[in-house]
Formats: sequence, C-alpha cells, structure tokens
Amino acid sequence: MALRRYIEETWRRVSLRHGFVEVDGPTFEYLDLYKVKSGDEIVSQLFHFESRGEDKKEFALRPEFTPTLARMIAAKANSLPRPIKWFSIPRCYRSERQQKGRLREFIQWNVDIVGDASINADVEIIALCVDALREFGLTTEDVRVEWNNREMLVKALTEKVTTAERIPAAFRILDKIGKLRPEDREKLYIDEACSEKERMVFEGLHSIVQKGLDVIGTEQAAAAEDFILEFNNYFLEMAKPTAERLKNAGLGKYSRAQMMIVRGLAYYTGLVFEVFDKSGASRAIAGGGRYDKLIEMFGGPSLPAVGFGMGDVVLENILREKGKLPVNLVSAPDVFVVSVLDDPAPAYVTLSELRTSQWNPEHTKISQTGLSAVSSYKTTKNIGKLLQEASASGAKLALILAPAEYDRGIVKLKNLATREEKEIPKDQILAAVRAALQRGP
Amino acid sequence: MALRRYIEETWRRVSLRHGFVEVDGPTFEYLDLYKVKSGDEIVSQLFHFESRGEDKKEFALRPEFTPTLARMIAAKANSLPRPIKWFSIPRCYRSERQQKGRLREFIQWNVDIVGDASINADVEIIALCVDALREFGLTTEDVRVEWNNREMLVKALTEKVTTAERIPAAFRILDKIGKLRPEDREKLYIDEACSEKERMVFEGLHSIVQKGLDVIGTEQAAAAEDFILEFNNYFLEMAKPTAERLKNAGLGKYSRAQMMIVRGLAYYTGLVFEVFDKSGASRAIAGGGRYDKLIEMFGGPSLPAVGFGMGDVVLENILREKGKLPVNLVSAPDVFVVSVLDDPAPAYVTLSELRTSQWNPEHTKISQTGLSAVSSYKTTKNIGKLLQEASASGAKLALILAPAEYDRGIVKLKNLATREEKEIPKDQILAAVRAALQRGP
Repeated sequence: MALRRYIEETWRRVSLRHGFVEVDGPTFEYLDLYKVKSGDEIVSQLFHFESRGEDKKEFALRPEFTPTLARMIAAKANSLPRPIKWFSIPRCYRSERQQKGRLREFIQWNVDIVGDASINADVEIIALCVDALREFGLTTEDVRVEWNNREMLVKALTEKVTTAERIPAAFRILDKIGKLRPEDREKLYIDEACSEKERMVFEGLHSIVQKGLDVIGTEQAAAAEDFILEFNNYFLEMAKPTAERLKNAGLGKYSRAQMMIVRGLAYYTGLVFEVFDKSGASRAIAGGGRYDKLIEMFGGPSLPAVGFGMGDVVLENILREKGKLPVNLVSAPDVFVVSVLDDPAPAYVTLSELRTSQWNPEHTKISQTGLSAVSSYKTTKNIGKLLQEASASGAKLALILAPAEYDRGIVKLKNLATREEKEIPKDQILAAVRAALQRGP
Repeated sequence: MALRRYIEETWRRVSLRHGFVEVDGPTFEYLDLYKVKSGDEIVSQLFHFESRGEDKKEFALRPEFTPTLARMIAAKANSLPRPIKWFSIPRCYRSERQQKGRLREFIQWNVDIVGDASINADVEIIALCVDALREFGLTTEDVRVEWNNREMLVKALTEKVTTAERIPAAFRILDKIGKLRPEDREKLYIDEACSEKERMVFEGLHSIVQKGLDVIGTEQAAAAEDFILEFNNYFLEMAKPTAERLKNAGLGKYSRAQMMIVRGLAYYTGLVFEVFDKSGASRAIAGGGRYDKLIEMFGGPSLPAVGFGMGDVVLENILREKGKLPVNLVSAPDVFVVSVLDDPAPAYVTLSELRTSQWNPEHTKISQTGLSAVSSYKTTKNIGKLLQEASASGAKLALILAPAEYDRGIVKLKNLATREEKEIPKDQILAAVRAALQRGP
C-alpha cells in the first residue's frame, strides 16, 4: 500500500505541477458505454452485472477511464474553459487471467489535453510522461518513448507502399510483427493477403527497428534494402518538426520516432507513443496518442484531444527490477512518548502537541503535517520495557516523562539509534525534537 | 474531486501522525464474506455479480471495509506485530436509493487497533477521531462524540431493569426510540413485549437524553422519575474511569457518555460511539466501537479490536453547512511562462526548472514538490493575448521571456493580481519566483 501511495503521489505531484486538474468518475458505468469505443468484443473482458429493479440495466466495472472522460467532456464541453487539462488515477478492472504485468484490479494514471490540436499539446503530453519517469528515477539508460504519427504513417504508406484501403491491414500487421517469430510473421502476411512489396517493406522495417534506427548510415544498414532506407528517410523527414520540438524540450535522448508504433486501438488520429523498458523484457509502461474524433463518438462536439495512460503494475515491476524503489516507504513514527507519570494528562498533551505541530511553515493549509507521535497502550511503569516497545516500533526518538525529572520541569530525549540521551526543559520539547530529527539518526 | 482529496488527505495525515499504517483490499470480495457479519439480509443492499467460467462464484462490491480487514487479519494474525494499528480509505458501494447523506458510491475512513484490549486503545481511537474533526475545523460547538459501553449497559439493565434474555430487545429499542414519534415508540414497546417497568425506563432515558444529561441535578430533572435518576447515576458511576481518561486526553468537552447509544450492529462488545452534529439535523458523522469477537468469526484467533468508520458524504454536507470547507481547494498554477522568443528551448527549460525545484527542503523524498508552472499551447507572439490567457488560468505570476531583454540576460516577472512588473536576471528566476510567491498576492 505504501508503494501504491508512492506511485500515486508521484503521478499526482507531476500532474499538478504541469497545471492539470484531477477528476474522477464512478467505478462502474453502463456496459454500453464501453462498446462505443471498443466494440462488442470488450464485453468478455469486463466484470459486468445487472441492476435490480424494473429496468435491468447492465453495468460494468470500468476497464479504463477514457470512455468516462469522453462522456464527461461531451456533457459539459461548452462550459469548460479550454484547453481542458485533466488527469485521473482511477482503479480499473479486467476480467481476465492474471499474469505478470496484468492484474484484474489495478490503478492507471490518465492525462489528457482536450480542445487543443497543436504540436505543443503533443509535446506537453510526452514531456509530462517523461517528467514522471524521471521522478521515479528512470533515466535514458532505462526507458525510451517510441513515438509515431498515424497521419504521417498513412501518408508514407500510401505514397510508397500500398493503397488507402489496405491501411487498416497495414496497421494490424505493424502492431503485431514486433512480437512474432519469423514463421508467425509469414503466416500473418498470408492471412492479411499482403503483396510481395508490402511483405518486403514490413520485414525491412522490422529489421531496422530491431537493430535500432541508429544503424541508418552505418555499415550494418548496408544490408537493408535501398527501398526500405528510402521509405525510412522519407518518414524521418516528415517526423522532423516533432523530433526537433521534443529535442528543444529536453526530450531528445528520452524519445525516438519509430515507424512500427501504431497502437492497437482504432481511434488514434495523429501522434501515438509507447514507453518501453530499454532492456526489452516487459510490456509497455505507458501509451497514448492523439484522438481527435473520440469526443464526437460519445455524443460531444468535435474536439481535438491527446493523452496517455500509465498503469501501476508494469511500472512497479520495472522499478523493482531496476532497484529504483525508494527504501523506507513505510514511515516509522518520529517520536515514541514513554510516560511513567501517575497523571496520564502530560503524555496526552505532549502527543497532541507533537502531532499538530506545524512542521513546514511554507506549506499550504492542505498539505501541512505534524509529527508522527505514538505511545504504548500498556499500563506498565517499567521504563525498560517501554523503551523496548519504542525501539520495536521503529521510532527515531523516545521522549521520556519520569516523575523525578518532570517535577523539575525536565524530560529526557533519547535517540533510539545512537542510544544518546539528553535532558531538555519540558517547554522546549518541540524545538528539541525537530533539531534531533533534522540531525538524522 | 479537489474536495474529496482534501478530505482523504486530512484523514491520511491524521492517521499517519498517530502511527497508523495504511492498508487496502480488493474492491470486490466473495459475497459470502459479507454474510458472516451481517447475515443474509445484507445481500439486497449489495451490488453483486457472478464470475464467469465453471465455478460461478458470487462476488459483491464492498459495502464496508471491516469484513476485508477481519479476513486479512485472520489470515496473517500470527505474523503481525501487535498492536496492529491500521487505517484504510476504501471506496464502498451500496445498492440502495440515494438520499441526502447516503450515496451508492462513497469513501469511508476506517481506523482499527487490533490486539489490544485496554482502555488506552479505546481512548486513542476516540482521540484520533476527534483530532480529525478538529483538523476539519469542527469545534466543541459543532460536534460531539456520544459514547457508551455495552458491557456497562448490560450490567445496568440486568441489575436494575430486566433479564439477560431481554437484552437484545432492549438494544433494539434503545437504538430506535431516539428517531420515533411518541405513538411509534408506544407501538415499538408493544411489538417488543415490554413490561411496564421497561417501558417506563426507556421513556425516562429518552427524555433525559433529549433534554441533555446536563439537566441532572437541576430543577428540570426533578420531573424525571427517581428510579430513572438512580439508574442514570448508577450508569454514570460505571462510566467514570473512561470519562476521566477522555478528560485527561483533552476530550472532555468533545465527548459525553450517553446511555442510548448502542449501534445497530450485533458484533460490538464494549465501547460504542457515534459522532453527531450538535445542531442535530443529520445522520451520525462517524461511528465505531470495540468488537472483540469479530476476528474469530472470520476464522482468526481470538483478538480484541476497536475501531471506527467515517464516511465522506455526511462529513462533506456538514462541513459545507457550517462553512468549514477551505476556499481555493483547486490550486491555480504558480507561474505562467509567456515566451515570445523564436527559440522554444528557453521556455521549456524554465518550465522544467520551476516544476522540479525543491520547494520544501525539509521534506522527505516522497512528498517533495515543485512549483506548478504552465504555458500556452498557442504559437502566437502577441504578449497581450498570452498575458490574458495567463490571467484566465488563475496563475499568480507571469514570467515573460521577450527577445530584447532576454538577449541582455533579463526576464520580466509580473504579479498578475497587482499588475506589478519587474526585471530580473535570468539566472535568478527561481529565487525571484519564490520570493514573490511568499509575499502572496
């Protein structure tokens, strides 16, 4: 849970500092809503149920947030100032076999800019995604955003390779071949009725992408067909303005144009991208793109939109594999109050003062926080036993209230790691505790 | 959403500073789990559905967190250090008609101490609840914890009023009569086959509680039957140790012993309490108590436990009615960067620096945060238009990057509220922005 909160809070912090506003919707929606975008096949992947009462409506636990977002924006499109910059961190559900990187219940960060068709919005979406990856400690050594643009790809394919009618088949092929063995790729080309030219281009692109675009212009690339290189150069020329923009935004090393990224979903209209672990083992960490027709499909006005989603499951696996998870996620108490006074009131007052102290004066009202202060529920007056409990709790400091000193206006502050102990006047507890915590263990 | 986050973050902050650890469970559990505690009647209040596949298991969306907690603790009881101090903020679901203070989907704060049977744990639970109420700005003028102890109540009733067999009937009556009109109370006494003595006691207690326990010892109380007063005094005598303890913990004015609080649920074994709005209009804000047999019911070892739940719906209504909601919950950007340079890079770099600046050096790794910094997606170079967009965004400051100054190493910082503008060296942007934000609008 501490790990989930760490992931969620990182997502939220990054979203807020880019000026996005948090939204959420209900956990379940009418089942039909999910068919609008994904067709009837989606139903078998959903947890769904019937409402009681006369109407017998079918509901489904949300498998993703985009249909809810589209429904909400369609309903309020005219009253929302644009661009609409929203993020959400919903729990989502899929009724399918669990496996590595895929659970039945998970959380997913969604970020969308609606109402702006510019390249600046595209770049902001990628920048935000990379900012989060950086915040999790993932560097250019670890991850890469591979992006493409469906418009560009359609242009390149129809000018150089195939006809407009064949584009859906080409997209299906490009989306799949990266994951297939050579014999399965051959089968796919036959199933999709590919021409010899199409087959050659797809195989060529596959081999360029496998070796890395960096091979272009090197000796290794000499093996690639001239036509594939020409196609690739034509494509890269079209990609230049976006690539330049990403470079200006400091994202050059985090991203590369990649012709085979098309994304499975039908509704993307321009930019598409996925974030991959460079060591290559697992699924995409995040994915998104531009979907300028979707709000209309949900009954809203024509509004351009771009966004992405990032789930917690794959991200957590990758952070764990790469040793990027923070240590000490579960916070131990700051102070354990050990009181052996007859009167229970001083311990209560001290606990209350520590807990409500203003630790960060620069903070806003919402995030201000006190110290974590605890005490034993036992009624023993054995200081040794209570100090044992204090150590077991993981607390950094013990504050000892004992009759002889307390009557002189003194309490003892003990550093439970170093065993160092000192007397402090009881009206200076807060200052002494802060000083001790700032010094660290 | 901003309001929900404010409520959640306040709950979380208060829990953490009392040394509680956050947990969560799945959104849905086997339907049977909910019958263990609440019987078969609960099913009609649940959203439930069948799994696909051979087994056809019945699932239900959780209506509350306690069964999940009991299941989790029963499974791991021997490996968990005690006392187990857990909190959770689950979304919960009820399939019932929506009304004021009751929605089909809501969040509920749950706090539990498991493995400690002491009065200190009881007091900590109430103290934590009150600490949160205080944090929301609710004072002794606004709310009160009304508490009782079922053991004490059983003792008082069996010694003075009725037999042990009649206790369940007595609890049902006490739980209901506060909400009934006189004629409905009479009907209830008949339905529950009350003796004349029982009827007199329940009516007497009802009238004392309606007038407030403060009337005891005053003229108004002279009207009450001697026996009722005697019963009441006997009860208060038993309640004294807990009342004293609450007073020592600074909770005297926030709480009072109240004989008619029994809580609807059968499983409470000792302390029971509810938090009421003193103006009296709405449902309880929170409720809880001691449930020393429940972990056993869920197949675990015999473990004492005490806890409470507080939902967001009633709380939000009360905060709103009393004008206690913070203003400006939705945070506006700190800085709007207006760049009319030809090169887009300086704006990107500035945004990135502002967003990742360490604003609170005292912070831990997890909660550190940068400034919220945004810019326009438009490509216009009209400073006036861009400043209009900056004002509309609600940003506090605009940072203006214009060619003539920028070439001299200068940018302009404009306070969008006061319209005050000044030139600053571009290597001092962060310091200048912080200083301006600290001065406020």
